[in-house]
Amino acid sequence: MKFEQLDMDLLQTVADIKGIPSGAVNIRRNGEAIFRHSSPNIIITTNPENKGLMVEVKAGTKGETVHVPVILTNSGFHDRVYNTFKIAEDAEVTIIAGCGIHNDSHSDSSHNGIHEIIVGPRAHVKYLEKHYGEGRGEGKRILNPTTVVRVEDGGSIEMEMVQIKGVDDTIRSTIAYVQEKGNLKVVERLLTHGQQKAESDIRVEIEGQGAAAQILSRSVAQDDSYQLFKAALVGKNECTGHVECDAILMDKAQIRSIPQLEAEDANAVLTHEAAIGKIAGEQLIKLMSLGLSEQEAIDTILEGFLR
Amino acid sequence: MKFEQLDMDLLQTVADIKGIPSGAVNIRRNGEAIFRHSSPNIIITTNPENKGLMVEVKAGTKGETVHVPVILTNSGFHDRVYNTFKIAEDAEVTIIAGCGIHNDSHSDSSHNGIHEIIVGPRAHVKYLEKHYGEGRGEGKRILNPTTVVRVEDGGSIEMEMVQIKGVDDTIRSTIAYVQEKGNLKVVERLLTHGQQKAESDIRVEIEGQGAAAQILSRSVAQDDSYQLFKAALVGKNECTGHVECDAILMDKAQIRSIPQLEAEDANAVLTHEAAIGKIAGEQLIKLMSLGLSEQEAIDTILEGFLR
Repeated sequence: MKFEQLDMDLLQTVADIKGIPSGAVNIRRNGEAIFRHSSPNIIITTNPENKGLMVEVKAGTKGETVHVPVILTNSGFHDRVYNTFKIAEDAEVTIIAGCGIHNDSHSDSSHNGIHEIIVGPRAHVKYLEKHYGEGRGEGKRILNPTTVVRVEDGGSIEMEMVQIKGVDDTIRSTIAYVQEKGNLKVVERLLTHGQQKAESDIRVEIEGQGAAAQILSRSVAQDDSYQLFKAALVGKNECTGHVECDAILMDKAQIRSIPQLEAEDANAVLTHEAAIGKIAGEQLIKLMSLGLSEQEAIDTILEGFLR
Repeated sequence: MKFEQLDMDLLQTVADIKGIPSGAVNIRRNGEAIFRHSSPNIIITTNPENKGLMVEVKAGTKGETVHVPVILTNSGFHDRVYNTFKIAEDAEVTIIAGCGIHNDSHSDSSHNGIHEIIVGPRAHVKYLEKHYGEGRGEGKRILNPTTVVRVEDGGSIEMEMVQIKGVDDTIRSTIAYVQEKGNLKVVERLLTHGQQKAESDIRVEIEGQGAAAQILSRSVAQDDSYQLFKAALVGKNECTGHVECDAILMDKAQIRSIPQLEAEDANAVLTHEAAIGKIAGEQLIKLMSLGLSEQEAIDTILEGFLR
């Protein structure tokens, strides 16, 4: 196993790491685990069923982190991986996933990650995932993550899923089931530019009594890019759910936003809000009056919006 | 032409009239025009193309009203009619439509009204439509209105579409096109109960610069009823659009709400808000502390919500 500068740059961008982090780690490059390390409470193995990653967090684990970044540097490589995360009861853990693609060629590179996350009773999980693409070639950088989340009684998960830039084509599918008194929060931040296409399809079934779910999406579409955002919240019990999507539209970009509320129980309280618009003129003028150029003012506003 | 008590009751419920109103009028009963009267500025004829109603409002008409209610009293009758409304430039008019079905039998009765409304340049239209069903039979009362609206430059229309009660099955389709500086407002109020099913599908294409559209929906679903609300707002120019849906869910009823924002121009500003929930407990308690029974308190809240 040898890391090159390119690997390290990608890893820093998608997983905020400057070297091998402490704790449990699995680094996948071009379809192979090039580094794997378990910790006493977090065991990483190869799942015999699907050859994918199996991450098991022991009951009662507190304040630990597991890093499972993926990088693709071979152009024209198509990677598919199944990752399973089992977080046992009362554990508290942070999962840092993320995928970076460097593609300098004319062939497309893609990563399809199929994640299953099981949040045990009263366990608390923070899940961070960043997607990023770079490279000078015309070959596309494609990322299609599929995530299935099961939150058991009293468990909670906060998922932050970010597409930084450089991803040409993405279909993000997320489906979650939330049991009694469980809590799920999904925060999605997306930037598309050039000719990029991004589709995000989130469905949350709130099954248990007293459960709650929130889906928050912030996105910026620039140039000729296209975004489709679908978020369905299904209330099957006495529960609360909220969907919020805010988008900034620029240049010739297009955005479609289709939230869906399905109340199947009279005690379900479901709400949503959305706004699509351009950068507020007053904000631009204010920043420019402080001495920023128009481009600097735009960059500052977008950065604030996507943080 | 002879009106019976049943006719008069239905006409009062759906069109707020106690006899033949003044101005232009067309009353359709069981598929036939039983009363027709044009006014100097509003001409009602039979459209030779589709045998339907043609209502033409002359340019510059001010403050006039046209009543075009439909009633069905023959059980098992299936009525289909094409209504065309042409409002010439600078006219201001109120259109009172509406359909009432009385069905005492085991056979279904239905009315399919296909309306086309052309709002000329700088014309202003108020369109009111109430739907109501009654009768003791097991035969369903079915109402499927299809409405196409074209708002020309600087024109405006405010549409209030109400389903009072007693309609077993409805699919309401509305499509509107709004040109430069045109304005469209759709207010929909819907009550479903028993085993009723209601689907409302509204699509507004905001095509002209400086145009605006609003879709406001308030609905109550009781008993085992089911509602599906779809509202798509498409911004194709510098324009503003807003969708708002509020629903009260009771008993074993179910509601699905699917708004859709499509921004195809970076200067389109589109927003939506929705909330599905039960009657607020504090409101109930407050009214009951003033001496109302629980049922009276519920009725008062629902009445306020749907007004």
